[in-house]
Amino acid sequence: MRPAWAPRTKPVIVTPQTHRFTEPLQLQSGAVLPAYELVFETCGQLNAERSNAVLVCHALNASQHVAGMHADAHGVAIPKSQGWWDNMIGPGKPVDTDRYFVIGVNNLGSCFGSSGPTHTNPATGDAWGADFPVVTVEDWVHAQARLLDVLGIQTLAAVMGGSLGGMQTLSWALQYPDRVRHAVVVASAPNLTAENIAFNEVARRAIVTDPDFHGGHYLRAGTLPRRGLRIARMIGHITYLSDDVMNEKFGRSLKPADLAVALPDAAPGDAPEPQPRTQYKYTTQGVEFQIESYLRYQGDKFSEYFDANTYLLITRALDYFDPARAFGGDLTAALARASAKFLLVSFTTDWRFSPARSREMVKALLDNRREVSYAEIDAPHGHDAFLLDDPRYHQAVRAYFDHTVAQSLGVAAEVAA
Amino acid sequence: MRPAWAPRTKPVIVTPQTHRFTEPLQLQSGAVLPAYELVFETCGQLNAERSNAVLVCHALNASQHVAGMHADAHGVAIPKSQGWWDNMIGPGKPVDTDRYFVIGVNNLGSCFGSSGPTHTNPATGDAWGADFPVVTVEDWVHAQARLLDVLGIQTLAAVMGGSLGGMQTLSWALQYPDRVRHAVVVASAPNLTAENIAFNEVARRAIVTDPDFHGGHYLRAGTLPRRGLRIARMIGHITYLSDDVMNEKFGRSLKPADLAVALPDAAPGDAPEPQPRTQYKYTTQGVEFQIESYLRYQGDKFSEYFDANTYLLITRALDYFDPARAFGGDLTAALARASAKFLLVSFTTDWRFSPARSREMVKALLDNRREVSYAEIDAPHGHDAFLLDDPRYHQAVRAYFDHTVAQSLGVAAEVAA
Repeated sequence: MRPAWAPRTKPVIVTPQTHRFTEPLQLQSGAVLPAYELVFETCGQLNAERSNAVLVCHALNASQHVAGMHADAHGVAIPKSQGWWDNMIGPGKPVDTDRYFVIGVNNLGSCFGSSGPTHTNPATGDAWGADFPVVTVEDWVHAQARLLDVLGIQTLAAVMGGSLGGMQTLSWALQYPDRVRHAVVVASAPNLTAENIAFNEVARRAIVTDPDFHGGHYLRAGTLPRRGLRIARMIGHITYLSDDVMNEKFGRSLKPADLAVALPDAAPGDAPEPQPRTQYKYTTQGVEFQIESYLRYQGDKFSEYFDANTYLLITRALDYFDPARAFGGDLTAALARASAKFLLVSFTTDWRFSPARSREMVKALLDNRREVSYAEIDAPHGHDAFLLDDPRYHQAVRAYFDHTVAQSLGVAAEVAA
Repeated sequence: MRPAWAPRTKPVIVTPQTHRFTEPLQLQSGAVLPAYELVFETCGQLNAERSNAVLVCHALNASQHVAGMHADAHGVAIPKSQGWWDNMIGPGKPVDTDRYFVIGVNNLGSCFGSSGPTHTNPATGDAWGADFPVVTVEDWVHAQARLLDVLGIQTLAAVMGGSLGGMQTLSWALQYPDRVRHAVVVASAPNLTAENIAFNEVARRAIVTDPDFHGGHYLRAGTLPRRGLRIARMIGHITYLSDDVMNEKFGRSLKPADLAVALPDAAPGDAPEPQPRTQYKYTTQGVEFQIESYLRYQGDKFSEYFDANTYLLITRALDYFDPARAFGGDLTAALARASAKFLLVSFTTDWRFSPARSREMVKALLDNRREVSYAEIDAPHGHDAFLLDDPRYHQAVRAYFDHTVAQSLGVAAEVAA
């Protein structure tokens, strides 16, 4: 057996695939999507029993590209093209693709490949824009289930996701209880609090009131609501981090000054040296603190690639998710349908999806006498912690997949590399 | 003596006054304000010894109008014109104006009367706009001290303020230690954390990137950056409340539907009846939840009366305040100058100015062997709690003024009404 720490020199190459569905999809809102495409990627090998599939659901700013790297036309790995959960999923990793067949699906409404607002509305021949129908967590799960039908996978060894991905995981366990053996719900919640909805709403208002939004038909108007997207992303970023980690990373440090003039001995094209700065500039519109520079940069970057209508759709899917709603708010009653075994993980400094919210789910599952493992990780990184490689967190997931998930498949706990 | 609970039927009328200063004010940034006006109000009577004056400092969205009501031209109280801290300050209230002479001063850079960006820049004859100089907490305190000189008040019985007002109070104790007997610092901090600066920065970016901002010279352009102000206010509002109180007040309730058509027996002009709603509308741009409606309303209201450049100036004053900065971050060294006695108050659910920040100040003062009283109030309302009339909070302030402040003045602890 290869030790877990052994470095892999050969990158794992994954390739996006597209499936076109021509059977209409009935959505929760009452609307019908006549036809649509889902982009997906797989990593690892499906076993002969077709029993080792793990579906990984993505959150707001992510896609089907969960692990491995993309390759160029010559089959060479593209630098920095690692999937968004590459530290968690891959050969020898906590979700070991030497053992499991991992599937990532880009959700409907996204701007990363699956049918979404930037695609053509067949009814008009123009981009869907704001006319793309509202999609919910339940809709995404239904669409994912159809893709599994196409792939010939009846039962999943596990569904797994963090944040909004955790909501999809919970929804899978409720809507398709017979098709899910294990549900791994990380840094998630059974619904959003008023404060969470509030942050989403401010971000949406920033986008919708951007004069370049044009009611959501900005592509038709030849514009992009970049101002609004920048603000939305800045708000998001603040809430993904903890107060502690922000103080540690940025504190009250001032942004270093760029040397405006090149030094006499500088080579042509040399970037100016940043100079440490201790004096305030006394500016209301300029950058003074490091944290400001960081947030502006994150906002600028995001506004260059993310679609504004997708942002609205995905934050609304977050707002709407609430399985207890149909049960008068009784989460225990709502979760009675689930028959999967659960691993839940939360992070102490996550104030968007706090441990208290995970504990609500643990309690409701235990009320229903379900098997639940729960790890509350003391991590300083806030909500972002679910994407980082905290060893205790990764060990909890590894142990769950190596033992609990593997046992239930009848697969040997140790697999030779 | 009149019991504290006895209702007052006659409203206390206060009148704003303006003093024009023609001596230039040197600002911390290096800029000089050649001449300026300060608007102030007083409540109560200055005693013969001129020893019972209490200066009350205001926070972001407030003014010199701390208590009492304004009157119309006929001397009749204007409905709902109570000052922003009227539950705290007045006859028989915790800060009892039967005993103390309370002074409120509108800060420089404000849009509520004192010289600010909407006033005329004498150098151009046009509105200052973005050219109004950056003002700091220290500058405000200097300007307030000059006003006290005009009023013939050498020593204050107390300086008092919440949030940004608490920062001014602390600054008074440091810059004019001989002129402050007591400092009452409520829901404040010795500086802003990175997260606080981050929220301020997003709000500022929303304003500055509004196309109607015109670099801060929107008055000249005949526009107002209302979109940006709305977003800024929505962000602010979320952070002033606690998660708990938002869940209690709004939770996940849907906004009731307005009846679009008037009922047959409705009188002309009758408002449509709101109808409780249980079904989602499935909208990304419309209002779905109560919390959204509330935030939009707050944003709209704020954008109608608040000046955008003032918002930038005041949030920057918050960012810049950091008395420990000149002492390498050593707050104990920074507070060594203060000789006042202190009352500090914090609220358990205040996540913008958390109890931990108040405890830092308490520790630094105790390190310097200063007299400090500290009340940490278990209140659900978040930062907003400092404006509400929680009985334990008000009792703590009342006891401090009735006993500690009063004793130090040589005034009898009980004053006949």
